[in-house]
Amino acid sequence: MNTPLFSINAARRASGQTIHEIALSAREAADGRPDCFVSVLSTDQIEVQVAKVEAQQAEGTELPLAGLTFCVKDNIHVAGHVSTGNCPGYGSVASKTAPVVQKAMDAGAILIGKNTMDQFATGLNGTRSPDPICRNAIDPAIIPGGSSSGSAVAVAGDICDFSFGSDTGGSGRVPAATNGIVGFKPTPGLMSGLGMVYCNRSFDVMPIFAKTVVDVARVFDVVGGADPLDPFAFAGVVHPMPETLGQNFAVPAELDYFGDADAKAAHQANLQSLTDAGATFTQIDFTPFTEAGDLVFGAALVAERLVDYGDFIERNPDAVLPPVAQAINAGRAYSARDAFEAMYRLAELKLECARILRGFDALILPTIPRLFTVAEMLADPMPLNSIMGTYTYFANPLGLSAIAVPGISRHDGMPSSICFVGPGGNDRALLQHARTFTAM
Amino acid sequence: MNTPLFSINAARRASGQTIHEIALSAREAADGRPDCFVSVLSTDQIEVQVAKVEAQQAEGTELPLAGLTFCVKDNIHVAGHVSTGNCPGYGSVASKTAPVVQKAMDAGAILIGKNTMDQFATGLNGTRSPDPICRNAIDPAIIPGGSSSGSAVAVAGDICDFSFGSDTGGSGRVPAATNGIVGFKPTPGLMSGLGMVYCNRSFDVMPIFAKTVVDVARVFDVVGGADPLDPFAFAGVVHPMPETLGQNFAVPAELDYFGDADAKAAHQANLQSLTDAGATFTQIDFTPFTEAGDLVFGAALVAERLVDYGDFIERNPDAVLPPVAQAINAGRAYSARDAFEAMYRLAELKLECARILRGFDALILPTIPRLFTVAEMLADPMPLNSIMGTYTYFANPLGLSAIAVPGISRHDGMPSSICFVGPGGNDRALLQHARTFTAM
Repeated sequence: MNTPLFSINAARRASGQTIHEIALSAREAADGRPDCFVSVLSTDQIEVQVAKVEAQQAEGTELPLAGLTFCVKDNIHVAGHVSTGNCPGYGSVASKTAPVVQKAMDAGAILIGKNTMDQFATGLNGTRSPDPICRNAIDPAIIPGGSSSGSAVAVAGDICDFSFGSDTGGSGRVPAATNGIVGFKPTPGLMSGLGMVYCNRSFDVMPIFAKTVVDVARVFDVVGGADPLDPFAFAGVVHPMPETLGQNFAVPAELDYFGDADAKAAHQANLQSLTDAGATFTQIDFTPFTEAGDLVFGAALVAERLVDYGDFIERNPDAVLPPVAQAINAGRAYSARDAFEAMYRLAELKLECARILRGFDALILPTIPRLFTVAEMLADPMPLNSIMGTYTYFANPLGLSAIAVPGISRHDGMPSSICFVGPGGNDRALLQHARTFTAM
Repeated sequence: MNTPLFSINAARRASGQTIHEIALSAREAADGRPDCFVSVLSTDQIEVQVAKVEAQQAEGTELPLAGLTFCVKDNIHVAGHVSTGNCPGYGSVASKTAPVVQKAMDAGAILIGKNTMDQFATGLNGTRSPDPICRNAIDPAIIPGGSSSGSAVAVAGDICDFSFGSDTGGSGRVPAATNGIVGFKPTPGLMSGLGMVYCNRSFDVMPIFAKTVVDVARVFDVVGGADPLDPFAFAGVVHPMPETLGQNFAVPAELDYFGDADAKAAHQANLQSLTDAGATFTQIDFTPFTEAGDLVFGAALVAERLVDYGDFIERNPDAVLPPVAQAINAGRAYSARDAFEAMYRLAELKLECARILRGFDALILPTIPRLFTVAEMLADPMPLNSIMGTYTYFANPLGLSAIAVPGISRHDGMPSSICFVGPGGNDRALLQHARTFTAM
């Protein structure tokens, strides 16, 4: 893997700019993007981090992420900062930094700020935000994608080298797709899940955004690994990077692009590149995957969202955006029995989907079925938002790993995105598939 | 292990009685115990089984449980029979036999009938039954223990060689304790959990009752093993029987016998036997175990019981015994959010209890804190029933394995019972500890 690392600041680093210069320059850029950052660390706070890294380097300590700039979604705890979930008035100052963030900082990365997001991470489009709405990094008329909108745009817009978002139903993949970057959502529990405002505690994941698969893998090497203090830590087998790359992929028997001909053409071209490189595709029944995804919002699992912010929404109905409140309040209608029935069904679907995927190297999907403009999304927010999750909702409830990588450009100039999905613990195989694809 | 196997019919077998004679004799005994059997198979149904076993033996097929008689609790499915849960009017004829039962029959065991139980397996005392109440095998004035009352008494009363019950909060251990036999409750999901009327689907277990640990182990060898078709199959590591027997045991810092001096004296004598054999005991904080147990009835987890029989109870309130209806209907008060909060807490407690047990060979407890008479239990059914679960409720929700074995006799002539509890997957170590203890 000799791909140049962290292309964003590579030129600056090559030209001899110091960590201090690069970090403060990133801070300035972030400060100028209130659509993308809820809060930016002060110059002092950044200089403290830089000084620590420089001192460690002076002592000869090897820091795998030394001087790389990063940012985190505003539902991830950073000590001393409020995790607002992009809802002004919500949250209190965090006393502890999330272990994943701490690991990145301990490895030398410099935290620049906290990102905008679909409020309470409830949305996949990036418009569910107090003003200003996050702007897509390529075409501001197009939705930025969500819910980790700011975290993806900060990378796509060359502000930070990498970022952490959150991914429940696709929030770490959809905004990677809309902004033409890589979004890697490890197996639930394969990175520490501690230190967040949760949607679905048992399968929320902190995805890694970066411009290349190699960059993402480099960050994952540092922050990955099940956390023994996390009650939802992954307990299965973690497979190493495979020696030889498989090319035996599953694809849904049918794909719906919801009328976006550009999306269809691009996905077919992406599959063709893989075919040209020797890959074979087998059609599978996607129905149980769709059913698992539907459980997240169409059944009692949506009530999990009430645990962290249900009381706040009840007490402050006007503080919450209407589509967000509508989606979350739906959880109040479900009984405990409903919750158990949903979980039983999910357990059955896990078995069934594992059986379907057995023997394949990965399941390949278009990350998103189509694009929408901001205007289209704001006009019809609930159904259009659901369309964005058609090919992402299922992965976390089923305990799968997934990576979204940019594919061929669409005819309209926007990026396409292809998603590799694999069983829990097969994360490194997915990174390898994705790297191979992007090198084509 | 040269302990005589299946002592119940050993003399008959030794005297040359045929499988046919022993099975029909067991059938007759079962037929005479309506307190213990909800239904008994017909002579024809038993003869079909016997003929099959004899034919296989004539062909030289090795059948590890050839000719052993067994019975199953009436919430376990046997094709062609109704699983009533001991509630007349509930249930329909099962189309498939539970895999565990099928495995036993395929290994040559002869099914005799289906046992009485605390209705819907909701109780730990054995009195929650339409008349006649199951009679304790040793002293009919004492509760038989439940909820697998009939399954335990059928073994303790020399009717069947072994039996299967169900164990959610202790139903496979408490009646073993009250009737002086062995009750082994494997790790949840380490035997197939398919084919039952469930209480808590995600951690219900079918315990094995027999007179000796060796008998139990022999049955477990045949029916054990995670079922790939079971959505709640155990996915952890299954440890083999340890080469050397550990003697480093954990015990709660405090034990409450609820005023039963006999129970206290017997448990202390049981611990003394272990001490004499070289065991050491370390006091642990039992509070998180108790809290995990309290979740089963004192939190939203009780709503799981509504899934299989909530609708029946709603439509047929008069068909259900008042304490059973009261316990189960409590689940209707909980919301989906409550269910998720209970499960989050349970996940935290799993971590904490695993940490507490780390390094110990087992946790040792009195299986039950004390005995009650039937009259006492009927006079105050809710609180006295809860007392019975003081040292059993926690094991299944925490994913642990446990075995209850008879200890020294109490001063009143009733048996005492000691329980070895270990992490999930350590079942064979527990069998070894228990066998060693009973050989002292």
